[in-house]
Amino acid sequence: MPYYIGDVIKDAGRLTARTPEKFREGGIEVIINTAVEEVDTDRQTVRLAGGLSRPYDFLALGTGTEALTPGIPGEDRPGVFLLKKLTDALAIKSYLAETRCRRALVIGAGFIGLEVSEAFVERGIETEMIHRGNLPASRWDPELSAALLEEMKRRGLIFTPATEVVSIEEGTSFRLRLNTGHGPREADIILLAVGVRPDVRLARTMGLTIGTSGAIAVNFSQRTSRENIYAAGDCCESFHRVSRRWVNIPLGDIANKQGRVAGSNIGGKAMTFPGVVGSQSFRIFSWEAAAAGLTEQEAAAAGFHPVAAVVWGNATAGVMPGPKRIGMKLVADRSTGRLLGAQAVGEQRVVGRINTLAAALWAGLGLDEIAYLDLAYAPPFSGSWDIIHLTAQSLMRKL
Amino acid sequence: MPYYIGDVIKDAGRLTARTPEKFREGGIEVIINTAVEEVDTDRQTVRLAGGLSRPYDFLALGTGTEALTPGIPGEDRPGVFLLKKLTDALAIKSYLAETRCRRALVIGAGFIGLEVSEAFVERGIETEMIHRGNLPASRWDPELSAALLEEMKRRGLIFTPATEVVSIEEGTSFRLRLNTGHGPREADIILLAVGVRPDVRLARTMGLTIGTSGAIAVNFSQRTSRENIYAAGDCCESFHRVSRRWVNIPLGDIANKQGRVAGSNIGGKAMTFPGVVGSQSFRIFSWEAAAAGLTEQEAAAAGFHPVAAVVWGNATAGVMPGPKRIGMKLVADRSTGRLLGAQAVGEQRVVGRINTLAAALWAGLGLDEIAYLDLAYAPPFSGSWDIIHLTAQSLMRKL
Repeated sequence: MPYYIGDVIKDAGRLTARTPEKFREGGIEVIINTAVEEVDTDRQTVRLAGGLSRPYDFLALGTGTEALTPGIPGEDRPGVFLLKKLTDALAIKSYLAETRCRRALVIGAGFIGLEVSEAFVERGIETEMIHRGNLPASRWDPELSAALLEEMKRRGLIFTPATEVVSIEEGTSFRLRLNTGHGPREADIILLAVGVRPDVRLARTMGLTIGTSGAIAVNFSQRTSRENIYAAGDCCESFHRVSRRWVNIPLGDIANKQGRVAGSNIGGKAMTFPGVVGSQSFRIFSWEAAAAGLTEQEAAAAGFHPVAAVVWGNATAGVMPGPKRIGMKLVADRSTGRLLGAQAVGEQRVVGRINTLAAALWAGLGLDEIAYLDLAYAPPFSGSWDIIHLTAQSLMRKL
Repeated sequence: MPYYIGDVIKDAGRLTARTPEKFREGGIEVIINTAVEEVDTDRQTVRLAGGLSRPYDFLALGTGTEALTPGIPGEDRPGVFLLKKLTDALAIKSYLAETRCRRALVIGAGFIGLEVSEAFVERGIETEMIHRGNLPASRWDPELSAALLEEMKRRGLIFTPATEVVSIEEGTSFRLRLNTGHGPREADIILLAVGVRPDVRLARTMGLTIGTSGAIAVNFSQRTSRENIYAAGDCCESFHRVSRRWVNIPLGDIANKQGRVAGSNIGGKAMTFPGVVGSQSFRIFSWEAAAAGLTEQEAAAAGFHPVAAVVWGNATAGVMPGPKRIGMKLVADRSTGRLLGAQAVGEQRVVGRINTLAAALWAGLGLDEIAYLDLAYAPPFSGSWDIIHLTAQSLMRKL
C-alpha cells in the first residue's frame, strides 16, 4: 500500500476546519493536516502526529521544498509573508482584503518575487523590490534582465538593487518598517521571496542518501537509496541531460512527471524519467522570460568551454505592424559547437522559441543545425530568418 | 561571376518606370525587368531580352514558382488577380483603391487564399471563398481545419465547399460573375489562389535534371546536375529529413537558407543544406495554424505505419483567466514510436509548440521522449502537462 507524503500533510492545522483529516477518495485512504513524525524503514511503518500509524509496502516521498527566510529580527511579524503553500496564498489574499495595503515590499527578485510584485502593482499597491543583487532574474544575462527591469519600471515597480536587509519592526507611516543597508523602507505588507531548498528533513532521519545538490538522490526510476522508497518532485534530484549531472530544479512540471514515473514503477509498470534540460519561464507584466540548458557559469563549471552571443530582434517579420522586441542569448561549447544553453526575454513568442531550443538541447543538436533548423515561418510569427537562426549564426562566428 | 536569375527578372516591364533596368549595388551588377531568353551552358553565357548577354563561371537559378490558374474562360478579365509577385500585390491594392469593391470571391483555400480573404474582410469587403474541397487548409486534419472554419465564419467570411469553378464573365449587380457547379456568384474582385508549381521552364531548356517532385534536382550543396550551376528556393527540391525523400516545399524561409548555401559554395566556402522537416504556418484572424513533418497520408506513402491522435486543450494553465483553445494532432510510426508529424490550430501559442515538435522531428525523437520533454512551464504559457505531452501520451496508448 503506497503512501504519498506531500506538502498537504505539512500544512497540519492550517487548512479550514471544514476539511476532514481522513477520508477515502477513489478507493484511496487520504490523511491530511497530519504531520509525519517518523518513518520506521525496518518495520515499514509511518507514525503520524496524533498517534495514527500506517504500514507500507512502498513509500513515496513528495516533501517538496522549504522556503528560505533572510533570518532577520522581526521576519515573523504579522504582515510579513512567505509564498510557498496554498495556505500562504490564501493568507496573503485575506490580509489584502482585510487591511488597507497602500505599499508593499518584496524581498528577493526571483520568479516568486517578480510574479507577486506584478500582482501587487496590478492591485494598485505601490511596490518596491529589495534585492541583494544588481538585477532581477539573475539566471538571465545582465543584458536581458536589464530589459526586464525596464519593463518593470515602466509599469511603476520600484527596484532597489544591491541592498541587504537588516530587520523588520513596527512602522510609522505604514504598518511595517524594513531596515536595510541603505536605510529604512516602510510598507503595509512584506513578502519574503529569497528562495527555497529541498525539504530533506524526513529523508535524513530515514537514512536516505542525499545528493551533492542537497536533494534526495534517486535513480531513473525515481527510487531512493532504499529499495521500496521512491521520491518525486522538488525534494529530489533530476538528471540534467546537458551537464550530465544530478541537479535539483524545483518546478511543478518536473514534479508532475517524476510523480507519474514513481507511481508507475510502484504500481508494477516499468518506467524511467528521461531527465531535464533546465527549462523554465515566467511572465512579468507583458514581458516573457524563458531559459533552458546551462548558463555560461554552469557550463564552465561542468567543464565545457562556453562561448555566448546575445542578439536582439523582432518576434515577428519586419514587415508586420507593431514590432515586438525579443532578446536571445545562446551558449555553446567552443570545442564541439554543441548548444549548451538558451535564454530569451521579450514582448511576445519567447517561450515557444526557448521550448524549440529545449528540444534541441534535449537531442544534443549543434549550432550548425540550429542555424538552419526548419521552423514554421510566416510573417506574423517570425522573420524568414528567425532570431533562433540569427543568434546561432552570430555565435558560430565566435567559435 | 555569378548571376542570380530570380523572380525580379521575370517581372520584365511590370515595375514602375522609375526603376533603372541596370545598376550596380555593392560592386554587383544588377539587371532587372529583363527576361532571360536562353542559357548556353556550353559557352557559359546568359542571353537576355533586348540583346544583352553575359558570361558566367557559376550560375544560380532562383526561378521560383509559377502560379496555377483554374484554366477557365474569363480568368484573364480585369478584376481577376493572382497573388504571386510583389507587382500582383501592388496591382490588387491599386484596384481596391481605384474601384469601389463591395464583394470579393477567392478561389482556393490554401495559405494565399486564406490570408487574402482575411485582408479583404478586414477592409470591410464581403468575401466568399470557393473551394473544391470540403474544408480550408487541407493539410490539417479535418477536425482541426473545421475549427479554423468556425473562426472564419465567426469573422463573417463565407465559405462555399465542394464547388468547381466553370467560367468568369461580366456581372450584373457586381462587376464580375463566376459561374460554378453550384450556380453563379457575383463580385467586384476575384482572386485565383489555386496553388503554384516550380518554374522549371528555363532549367528544362538547359537540360538540368528535374526531380520526381517536378522541381530542379539539387544536391546538399544546392548544385544542380551541372557542375557550375546551382539552384535555390521554390524552383528546386529539398531533402525531407522525415520521409527521407527529395521534395518541393515552396516557402520563403527555405529559399533564404538554400540561397545562402548556394552562394557560400559558389564563393568557395563549403556549406551544406541540412534539409527540411516540412514546417509551415499561417494566421487566419486571431487563430494560428502550424504543421511540421508528414501527414498520415504522406507517412503511409513513405512506407511508415502511421497512427495518429488529436487532442484539444488549453494554450495556458487551467487556472489562468481567459482560456485559449488549442487542438493538436500527432502522427507516429507504429513500429518504432518515432514522431512523424505534428499539426496544431488555436487561438494562442500554436507556432512555438509546432516549432518545438519541428526540432523533435529534426532530431528524430520518439513519442516516449516527447511525452516527457522538459518544456519551460509557467501557468501563463501552459499547463504543467503541456498539450504536447498530453497528445504524445494519448498517441502512445494507441501504439
